[in-house]
Amino acid sequence: MTDFAAWSRLIQARTETVLAALLPGGAIAPEQLHDAMRYATLGGGKRVRPMLAHAAGEAMGADPARVDRAAAAVELIHVYSLTHDDLPCMDDDDLRRGKPTCHVAYDEATALLVGDALQSLAFEALAHPDAATDAATQVEMLCLLARAAGSRGMAGGQAVDLAATGRTPDLAELEFMHIHKTGALIQAAVLLGALATGALEAATRERLERYARCIGLAFQVMDDVLDAEFDTATLGKTAGKDAAQGKATYLSLMTVKEARTYSHELLNDAIEAIGPLGERGLRLAQIARFIVERSY
Amino acid sequence: MTDFAAWSRLIQARTETVLAALLPGGAIAPEQLHDAMRYATLGGGKRVRPMLAHAAGEAMGADPARVDRAAAAVELIHVYSLTHDDLPCMDDDDLRRGKPTCHVAYDEATALLVGDALQSLAFEALAHPDAATDAATQVEMLCLLARAAGSRGMAGGQAVDLAATGRTPDLAELEFMHIHKTGALIQAAVLLGALATGALEAATRERLERYARCIGLAFQVMDDVLDAEFDTATLGKTAGKDAAQGKATYLSLMTVKEARTYSHELLNDAIEAIGPLGERGLRLAQIARFIVERSY
Repeated sequence: MTDFAAWSRLIQARTETVLAALLPGGAIAPEQLHDAMRYATLGGGKRVRPMLAHAAGEAMGADPARVDRAAAAVELIHVYSLTHDDLPCMDDDDLRRGKPTCHVAYDEATALLVGDALQSLAFEALAHPDAATDAATQVEMLCLLARAAGSRGMAGGQAVDLAATGRTPDLAELEFMHIHKTGALIQAAVLLGALATGALEAATRERLERYARCIGLAFQVMDDVLDAEFDTATLGKTAGKDAAQGKATYLSLMTVKEARTYSHELLNDAIEAIGPLGERGLRLAQIARFIVERSY
Repeated sequence: MTDFAAWSRLIQARTETVLAALLPGGAIAPEQLHDAMRYATLGGGKRVRPMLAHAAGEAMGADPARVDRAAAAVELIHVYSLTHDDLPCMDDDDLRRGKPTCHVAYDEATALLVGDALQSLAFEALAHPDAATDAATQVEMLCLLARAAGSRGMAGGQAVDLAATGRTPDLAELEFMHIHKTGALIQAAVLLGALATGALEAATRERLERYARCIGLAFQVMDDVLDAEFDTATLGKTAGKDAAQGKATYLSLMTVKEARTYSHELLNDAIEAIGPLGERGLRLAQIARFIVERSY
């Protein structure tokens, strides 16, 4: 099966099943919290990070079942961050994945606890015996996810994003922000998917890190382009909001055409990085292309 | 050294040093976030959970250095939960440990990210090679902390607490809430301190769990008594607030005298549970007494 669309639907379905099993049922106390956690997590999302984890696992020759928990753990961190980002004290957004955001559908306190509990659940999922081939690699994976999520990773990128609102940073500052805000978790997805199959050789790890760094930036460049070019219905989230809120975006530094060119340069770098993986890197290359060529 | 006051000061100082080293410096980007994380975490707190972890480690014959990271990880989860609890959408509190709360000293978005990043840091601290004697036990410790913090532990207890505000639950409901909200993390502190020395025998683990369950409840009973009896200056947080907010407390179900009697019954149970540990259980017994007899 070389068809990327079919493969990505398979991974999306697989991710949905794994997440639905990991999340406590809505009938388990506290019912409302569990219901809200399921609302925030299930039934939507491109699942780019789980796709990356599975693609990296495939590149290492792994069975998809081996990668399921790593993929789900990264997605849970991602969903927690979206839930908190949408809160009134952050981006104050009402729409996410085509649905009312968690604090709109429930309330702010519940959305806060949903994010908190999803973060814990991510580590619980990754600390399960099925999540790795050996305990030493598993501890390394848990450490990597914690660092990617924390103040020197995703949460730190959020803080820089907030601080940059209302002024125009230069390209170096913008990339520092994105490498943390989106890049750290994208890199974690790739590395965790590969590590789920066992310890990695240094050279392979470096190739995967370079690939992840490039597609992480490309993803953000395209996010900015799409936010400016498409409407709310297509995106499933409020369009044009970044510019309206005075958020720093690539389009404050370059034109849409330049941004598209830049994202293609990043794509080429990413594909070159995984060249030595040969045929096994097929899915990683397809995801890189999808990120740059997507329209939602 | 059998003097509990001197020992507890030693553990407090030790915990402060370990936390100060684990938290990124205020000069590391993003500076404001790291500064706020240090503000929320350092320079205050009774450090009851680190004391419990160290006391449990001592009961297993461990060197204190072996327990430092487990103790710090539990305290980081505790501080994150306080930071989020104090937010306007939760308890909306201005004072904590005698200082303005994090969202008052900084802003709401920063306090949200501080809590998020402290949770990640807790798992990062516990995933360090120094945190356990072997990788298999370490994965078990990480899983235990994640579960204790999550929706079937502390975050779940918070959700039940919110849902119970404004009405009087019965004793069973109140204890369900406290077993989750405070009890889960107290139990994690005891077990992680013991596990930091290596895998535990089933009988020892059960004794420690029973001890932790009893002191967890006693801690909450006394918190309610102190909240009603003492003033803001003594407590270092806003006094009388639970009753004013219509929060469910033990004092809506029993008198202060009955609550004190109940906490002493729990104390006796806790001390009985660790009886077979003999002299090694001295600190655990002292902490149990401190929890029931404290006045702040």
